Amino acid sequence: MVKRNGAQAELRHRNLALVLRALAAGENLTRATIAAEVGLTRATVSTLVDELLAAGLLEERGAQRPGTVGRPGTALALAAAGPAGIGAEVGVDHLAVCVVDLRGDLRCRSECPADNRGRPAAAVLAELAELIGRVAKEAAGMDLRPVGTTVAVPGLVGQDRGTVLRAPNLGWEDVDVATALGPGTTVVENEANLGALAELWLGGHDRLADFVHVSAEIGIGAALIVEGRLFRGARGFAGELGHVPVRPDGPLCSCGAHGCLETFAGEEALLRAAGAGTPRALRTAAAGGDPAAIAALAGAGQALGVALSGAVNLLDPQAVVVGGPLADLAPWLLPGVRAELAARVTDRRWRPQDVVTSRLGRDGVLRGAAYSSVRAVLDDPAAWIHTPER
Amino acid sequence: MVKRNGAQAELRHRNLALVLRALAAGENLTRATIAAEVGLTRATVSTLVDELLAAGLLEERGAQRPGTVGRPGTALALAAAGPAGIGAEVGVDHLAVCVVDLRGDLRCRSECPADNRGRPAAAVLAELAELIGRVAKEAAGMDLRPVGTTVAVPGLVGQDRGTVLRAPNLGWEDVDVATALGPGTTVVENEANLGALAELWLGGHDRLADFVHVSAEIGIGAALIVEGRLFRGARGFAGELGHVPVRPDGPLCSCGAHGCLETFAGEEALLRAAGAGTPRALRTAAAGGDPAAIAALAGAGQALGVALSGAVNLLDPQAVVVGGPLADLAPWLLPGVRAELAARVTDRRWRPQDVVTSRLGRDGVLRGAAYSSVRAVLDDPAAWIHTPER
Repeated sequence: MVKRNGAQAELRHRNLALVLRALAAGENLTRATIAAEVGLTRATVSTLVDELLAAGLLEERGAQRPGTVGRPGTALALAAAGPAGIGAEVGVDHLAVCVVDLRGDLRCRSECPADNRGRPAAAVLAELAELIGRVAKEAAGMDLRPVGTTVAVPGLVGQDRGTVLRAPNLGWEDVDVATALGPGTTVVENEANLGALAELWLGGHDRLADFVHVSAEIGIGAALIVEGRLFRGARGFAGELGHVPVRPDGPLCSCGAHGCLETFAGEEALLRAAGAGTPRALRTAAAGGDPAAIAALAGAGQALGVALSGAVNLLDPQAVVVGGPLADLAPWLLPGVRAELAARVTDRRWRPQDVVTSRLGRDGVLRGAAYSSVRAVLDDPAAWIHTPER
Repeated sequence: MVKRNGAQAELRHRNLALVLRALAAGENLTRATIAAEVGLTRATVSTLVDELLAAGLLEERGAQRPGTVGRPGTALALAAAGPAGIGAEVGVDHLAVCVVDLRGDLRCRSECPADNRGRPAAAVLAELAELIGRVAKEAAGMDLRPVGTTVAVPGLVGQDRGTVLRAPNLGWEDVDVATALGPGTTVVENEANLGALAELWLGGHDRLADFVHVSAEIGIGAALIVEGRLFRGARGFAGELGHVPVRPDGPLCSCGAHGCLETFAGEEALLRAAGAGTPRALRTAAAGGDPAAIAALAGAGQALGVALSGAVNLLDPQAVVVGGPLADLAPWLLPGVRAELAARVTDRRWRPQDVVTSRLGRDGVLRGAAYSSVRAVLDDPAAWIHTPER
């Protein structure tokens, strides 16, 4: 290989990432259309594409669009084999693991029920490690090589991205997940953050780069995407929509304050108001026209709308995305959400279509976790190409 | 001058700005201490400093710290003469103009009372242009050369930063301020945004780069600083703290919704609750121990605290800064604000000292406007050095 100086190498790394990202975002691109899109010469793009092909990050797909002027180009795509990402999820009542390829496509997935609430973290992580091993082996059989694992947890993660500082619903405090599962290749992230990133990367919304993502399992989880990046706040605690005050004199919340959104729209409050035992039962009751279920969901939707109005007035996002388990309840929640936003957002007209339901379903968080491992390769392909053990 | 290629020129521009910014942030720096701070060689820094001295952006201040090892260096400082910024403020009841130098120091200032509510915009701007002309002449007498004017308005500014889209308290709609005052050198900005930027640039808080800045004149103005930048939101409407719901069934707000913060803590609500005629009278009454005034301010503080708790839970800033006219009322407002934040902020302990009162006083917005014109020179000194008419 020709020896390059620092600035040239840096430029080449950046250009490799540019080309790869163009391919991640678009379909049926050729060397010529990539060159036009990223603003490099056709010759430079050809060299970069050759390097990415040789590294197994791209594949060719035959001639493309012969109807257009000039020689038909060869369509390129991200490789379906090669680098892949593992996503793992520690839920209150389950463990799940999946693998996605460079394209973000789900390639294999395994889940097992588990009562993780209050169980020793070491036992949970041992079981998770076994599940990861099994799924990784399955991936290897498909010629996929996982580059890292991202673990989604319902809790607060340390700045090292390896330790769970606090996950009240699991009963965890200061659990070093990365060391247990493979330091160096394991990253831990809050599940609400991964749900939002999944929506950004894989949600299929065109040009949606500024939004509030709301989800819920036990609590209300939310995360903010700003200019295409996760907004973490000064200390990493941003996105606590569940503790935005809705009625300052309202019911006592588990956090010690009164009238937080969670006391109106959290799972516990919602099930109690509806007289339902589980979220699934609540959904069934609402679908069957049960007045208590429908009223409980309407009330929760209204409270969610009040809290979101405050968030929208402060942050001016393009949209609100309702995802995770909440998306299943959207038909009964969203009218209240939309009515409050329409009444309370000031400086611009807030339209019903600015509240979007996620299409990722319950797998959003898990796929987001797996894809976040793969993103490292897309963001810096040169580092991956030069990894010795590759 | 030696002809340089593009990359070298870019690097030099960046390095000039680095050196200038180090001098804007620190005091009594020498070529050697700058080199250590910005990570360039002493020789490179000397060349850059010579160029900045020749351009009149710096001045030398004699030998520095002879007690330290080695030859004493010469202390450097931003020039007190040369490039300067004009700030102008269109208030409901006054016009004000000031000039600050490269250091951000206020050099001259002029203000006149004016009843601008509902007055034709052209008349207001003609009077403002005259005031600007007078102050600019005074600045020229001090060997200051204004590089641009920033106009602060209590309203919504278009993305061109030249037009006021809407300023309800002035009765303005679609007013092209930049063309009226000097296109190319005039920028228009919302006053709450400039108040927050003034706090960031000139407030004297060490390392405070993520905060919510709250102010108030007629309405409640707020702006968010995130990672040292103004957070504008997807469409430029971020920071509407005044319309965060505090009690969803509360009084009707001018925006059409119920229970917005403004209905509890806006000037009109506050004066009515206190039975006071003007903010000054309110302050005097509170200082004199008037129970109605004190109760009204306590109620407003509590409402402000509820709305800010939501903002802090969502955004996780380092601090809340109370500035502008509100700062005068801090002794009576802040206890309620602090109590609500302490009770409602979840993921970390919120301490009384995380709510800060601005030291800039009523001139914060005006000085922020003027300094924002000067920032253009600090951010890109090369562009200014090569301006033909300089």
